[in-house]
Amino acid sequence: MIETLQQTMLDAIETELKKQVGRLAQARTQDFHEMLTYHMGWSGEGAGSQAAGKRVRPLLLLLSVASFGDKSDDIEKKIINWLHAVPASASVELIHNFSLVHDDIQDNSELRRGRKTAWVKWGAPMAINVGDALFVIANQSVLDLQTHYPHEMVVRAAEILGECCLQLTQGQFLDMSYEERADLTIQDYWPMVGGKTSALLAACTQIGALLGYAQNSQMEDFRLFGHHLGLAFQVQDDILGIWGDEALTGKSAASDLVEGKNSLPILFGLEKNQEFAKRWKRGSVQQTEVMEIASLLEKEGARAYAERISEDETKLALGHLERAQPRGEAAEALLGLANMLLKRKQ
Amino acid sequence: MIETLQQTMLDAIETELKKQVGRLAQARTQDFHEMLTYHMGWSGEGAGSQAAGKRVRPLLLLLSVASFGDKSDDIEKKIINWLHAVPASASVELIHNFSLVHDDIQDNSELRRGRKTAWVKWGAPMAINVGDALFVIANQSVLDLQTHYPHEMVVRAAEILGECCLQLTQGQFLDMSYEERADLTIQDYWPMVGGKTSALLAACTQIGALLGYAQNSQMEDFRLFGHHLGLAFQVQDDILGIWGDEALTGKSAASDLVEGKNSLPILFGLEKNQEFAKRWKRGSVQQTEVMEIASLLEKEGARAYAERISEDETKLALGHLERAQPRGEAAEALLGLANMLLKRKQ
Repeated sequence: MIETLQQTMLDAIETELKKQVGRLAQARTQDFHEMLTYHMGWSGEGAGSQAAGKRVRPLLLLLSVASFGDKSDDIEKKIINWLHAVPASASVELIHNFSLVHDDIQDNSELRRGRKTAWVKWGAPMAINVGDALFVIANQSVLDLQTHYPHEMVVRAAEILGECCLQLTQGQFLDMSYEERADLTIQDYWPMVGGKTSALLAACTQIGALLGYAQNSQMEDFRLFGHHLGLAFQVQDDILGIWGDEALTGKSAASDLVEGKNSLPILFGLEKNQEFAKRWKRGSVQQTEVMEIASLLEKEGARAYAERISEDETKLALGHLERAQPRGEAAEALLGLANMLLKRKQ
Repeated sequence: MIETLQQTMLDAIETELKKQVGRLAQARTQDFHEMLTYHMGWSGEGAGSQAAGKRVRPLLLLLSVASFGDKSDDIEKKIINWLHAVPASASVELIHNFSLVHDDIQDNSELRRGRKTAWVKWGAPMAINVGDALFVIANQSVLDLQTHYPHEMVVRAAEILGECCLQLTQGQFLDMSYEERADLTIQDYWPMVGGKTSALLAACTQIGALLGYAQNSQMEDFRLFGHHLGLAFQVQDDILGIWGDEALTGKSAASDLVEGKNSLPILFGLEKNQEFAKRWKRGSVQQTEVMEIASLLEKEGARAYAERISEDETKLALGHLERAQPRGEAAEALLGLANMLLKRKQ
């Protein structure tokens, strides 16, 4: 039953995304349209669900809406409730993808979900424009809420997205400006991941509650649920980026140690200023040293620290979710999605 | 009197722009904020009104609003009428500047209004993010209309901006895709400049009419006024880009012939397929050949053709403006602004 609701939502999300991106499917801009459909995972070499990604953000938004749904067993009512919010779910996924396209240019990343990135295929100038178009369409999508919601709520949803996008650019700025700095501490970590990861997840759950006609206090709890979920997820990702099987063996994911990423365990190690910090400041890490340095960092307490933080943030997230009293199968699915994101067993 | 109204508006625009961009003036993102204030012409080397540009678009929007103002001589009423629309005027100027920052990266332009461009100063990755932030703040600004307008009108204004921005990205796509093509004709010109230049001017005048509580037919006339004004302006600019004093002498503006720009006179020459077209296809033009090739293009009729088109578009623009019956000093100022843009004597 939960599976079915999620799948129904995922289908609706994909249909809406294709419709929204279809705004560019005009006579003279077919090739432009194809650049967007390629990035979204629908066309070109390697197209398919693997290339599209998991659509976690729109799903989080729709499940949030549905968790404020009618208590009755009237399936149709429940579906209508979240169906009306589908344009907002497309909007958050498009914002996510706009930021990925620009990120890939900024980070010089050649691969995304196993496929060539947009700038590798069409050059940076075209890819900048592809990202811009995804962002424009994201802004247009959220306005389509007006079909089923009062204009005041449409403006409120657009405001939440605007604030979230501003935080995205601030997180991106911090991330880039950290590259030249050798004096970072853990205090520098939170505003960066707050912008880069948490802001959009918080917008998803907050807008979900808004569009589910939740009360203000529930909206705030949902915002904080998304915020802490984002932080817990990012820290979890940071742990896997150093001690995950793939990072250690270098088989498919590059280690954060090799990439020199300013992740939480690394900033912890720098702040400790012991053996790891000395090695880190000597210059870039080779794949052959990864096991040894990861082990050094673990001995200095970075892994335990990050795991505790991830656990704390998870508890905060789930606490806020519980307090808002989400209902029915959507609430169960929401918990399932959070656990999936955090790679926890339920 | 007209001067005073325009100057009052320009002051209000600048104050609002600084307030909106000030969203980034937070503890950790001061340097980021400065990148935006530099581009806007307020800070850094060469700051000042020359660096800021003429703010034509926001002025066009506010004059449009004011031209639907009260007929009475109550100055205060008139001012209040356009003052309420100031957040929308900031929005169009920010959209313009977002597109300039990304354009400069895409075109590899090192100078903008006589100063180093953002990517030259901070690198392309940072500059992409500067453009993104300007666009985010543009989206936030328009929502601030809700202080004085019903939410339905706010959503409508945001919709008009969304459609306009989509056209901007389409025009930008066409412009970039034309670089590799040798088979362009005049037919390829209009959708490009329609997106790159006209769409935003049309949005300014249309939103101005909307926020002036104009009737639907007046709104449509104002949209078409901006649209044709944009086309006339672009063609005029194309003419000056080849036969203007600066283009011919190379003193401060590079000739469109040297830059290989797909401007209207050049596409006319290519379509003619005579001597100019032969020379054009042989490879890039040097500054020393500019006089000769400009003269060749003029002999083949390109200049007369472009001047006729510019004149036609001007007539269309002014016809639509007249039909909407704008009123008072704002209407006069609007006509003055149009003539200034088209470098015509009144």
